[in-house]
Amino acid sequence: MTNELNEKWQRLQQVMQENGADGCLVASNRNLYYLTGSLFNGYFYLPAEGQPHCFVKRPPMPPVTECHTIRKPEQLPEWFVQLGLPQPRVLMLESAQLTYAEFVRLQRIFGSAQITDASQPLSWLRMIKTPWEIGQMRLSAQRQIELCALIPQCYHKGMTDIDLQIEIEYRMRKLGSLGYFHTAGSGMEVYMGSLLAGGNAATPAPYDFALGGGGLHPSVPLGANGTRLEEGMAVMADMAGNYTAYQSDMTRVYSVGRLSAEACRAHHVALEIEARMEAAARPGVACADLYADALQTARDAGLADCFMGSRFQAKFVGHGVGLDINEPPVLTPRSQDVLQAGMTFAFEPKFVVAGVGAVGIENTYLVTENGVEKLTVWNEEIVELK
Amino acid sequence: MTNELNEKWQRLQQVMQENGADGCLVASNRNLYYLTGSLFNGYFYLPAEGQPHCFVKRPPMPPVTECHTIRKPEQLPEWFVQLGLPQPRVLMLESAQLTYAEFVRLQRIFGSAQITDASQPLSWLRMIKTPWEIGQMRLSAQRQIELCALIPQCYHKGMTDIDLQIEIEYRMRKLGSLGYFHTAGSGMEVYMGSLLAGGNAATPAPYDFALGGGGLHPSVPLGANGTRLEEGMAVMADMAGNYTAYQSDMTRVYSVGRLSAEACRAHHVALEIEARMEAAARPGVACADLYADALQTARDAGLADCFMGSRFQAKFVGHGVGLDINEPPVLTPRSQDVLQAGMTFAFEPKFVVAGVGAVGIENTYLVTENGVEKLTVWNEEIVELK
Repeated sequence: MTNELNEKWQRLQQVMQENGADGCLVASNRNLYYLTGSLFNGYFYLPAEGQPHCFVKRPPMPPVTECHTIRKPEQLPEWFVQLGLPQPRVLMLESAQLTYAEFVRLQRIFGSAQITDASQPLSWLRMIKTPWEIGQMRLSAQRQIELCALIPQCYHKGMTDIDLQIEIEYRMRKLGSLGYFHTAGSGMEVYMGSLLAGGNAATPAPYDFALGGGGLHPSVPLGANGTRLEEGMAVMADMAGNYTAYQSDMTRVYSVGRLSAEACRAHHVALEIEARMEAAARPGVACADLYADALQTARDAGLADCFMGSRFQAKFVGHGVGLDINEPPVLTPRSQDVLQAGMTFAFEPKFVVAGVGAVGIENTYLVTENGVEKLTVWNEEIVELK
Repeated sequence: MTNELNEKWQRLQQVMQENGADGCLVASNRNLYYLTGSLFNGYFYLPAEGQPHCFVKRPPMPPVTECHTIRKPEQLPEWFVQLGLPQPRVLMLESAQLTYAEFVRLQRIFGSAQITDASQPLSWLRMIKTPWEIGQMRLSAQRQIELCALIPQCYHKGMTDIDLQIEIEYRMRKLGSLGYFHTAGSGMEVYMGSLLAGGNAATPAPYDFALGGGGLHPSVPLGANGTRLEEGMAVMADMAGNYTAYQSDMTRVYSVGRLSAEACRAHHVALEIEARMEAAARPGVACADLYADALQTARDAGLADCFMGSRFQAKFVGHGVGLDINEPPVLTPRSQDVLQAGMTFAFEPKFVVAGVGAVGIENTYLVTENGVEKLTVWNEEIVELK
């Protein structure tokens, strides 16, 4: 872990030097974990040169680097003096993770410093995974694969979508799911993933996910809505891959009895879109081109109207994954992102077929030197629930 | 619901008029739900006089008031012109919920307006519950009570704390738990509550909860840590009361076999602290006085060293509950809060007894005109697991 963290600190210091920043102060859970391998209540400070320091408001102390106890962030400048750390002239703070109140408080404390954003540079660093991070994602992916195989055992005739989801969640926890589902952005509150059965797959949700679902309560407007599972219905399971801090993302489709020929055809168009991406993706390929190709294949199949939703259509077909489920790169029409080795992303061509539900696929990929490697290898055909 | 929302809007307009604000723009999930009874992707705008408007970036539309479709917040000022809404000279924005980037973007859009904080006034409004909100909390409390009775059935000999927690979570979901656990603050990431067995109860966690626990993974440092449940161990179950959007909070202690006389005595001191609070609490009573009395009772019993933790001691004995599990008022040594009718708060005197674990109690109370009413009425003695 020491080497892992040293590498991350050096990469961040390089960014700081390129941007003319003297220091980077991090306080959000996700970036604290990224930079220390732990969560604690306080601040991680990395100067442009030298070793980082942690300033901790209450135990536990992070098990890395030098730690100092503080009551409040106003004590940071005096600690800097005591430790011989220069007061930063240009300080990086997380504008996309800290609340306005938290950010402005730190801004005041370092009143003489020019403040620049830490969130964007850190998200770009996080986008390229280290070998250890990739190993963590493989562990999550392996558990997700095990779960997929258990889903048919969760089903019994007459149950609702939420009944099935509860059985799945139970097995996820038994397989070691850490529970909390990490998303970036202040409003994406999701529990353990989403299970969409039948017509509920067409219902839009407020969050920027591939598909929605009405949910069970106005305060949790996503996913299962109490639909009774009936013959001819597609059941799409897009449950969390949170078995380590590094999440994988994987969707499989199950069916109650057989699905219509139209639904089966749409499913196979999704697999074709996936195969085309797998053949094309490699370092240097533009994410916008991957989206365009996916949309074109959907169009050619006459399925553009139900690609990535029907009543509402998501304008992406994939997204980076890692500590958050929605990281860069994004596979959208206007994405500026270009694939690089070490990126991990989910690719999820999906269709909502009227009268049936959602079909399609989602897998997590690692970008390698000359292509992509699928981390979530498991049967991609529709699995019948009996 | 219409009357409910109208009352909330009027209360907020009164605050706005007192503060000289012309408008309040809300974008955080919790305040959107408070003010519209739903979640959506966009903004709720309330002028100081007249009806509110919702500006929605993607469906679904909230089922209240006038809704308008926008792509981005930069379109808000032109919408205001079109709707005949005056551009606000003093605008309230949520400084404690929006990220710095989100807040500053809105600040720029309403460049001519003076910005004042909406978070604090909204949290004070939310502190006093309406009859409907109290009804929702009663529903959550009722389910929590049902759960407590089911916990003994979840136990079998040889299991670990996390094994037991998973069984409890499964029953919570079957009872209608909505899953997602709502906390205020950018970093309090908790799954379905906390189960603390034996010595793990003494381990501090980074979050501002009554007790900690080491957790199962450095990215989720709270609660159960894989402790095998053994004879003489206390098992404290402080699981989420999230059966409606309005959460209740309730803790009960279970034991594997019998606990030591010292642990039983500490448990009864906690019940005594609770009884003293119940006798004293009514509108006008200072929350700091309730804390001071609790601490004094712990001191008199010679238990000050293990009150609210041992290796780390939380400096509160209660907290407001509702849409978030950690709302005002706070029952801390220096709290400025004073009880008012319609407040709901959790009171949780707890002790960590060396070699045994955590004992004590937590219940949710409603402040009435002349006292408090306990919403989570159930056996308060330690329940033996067999």
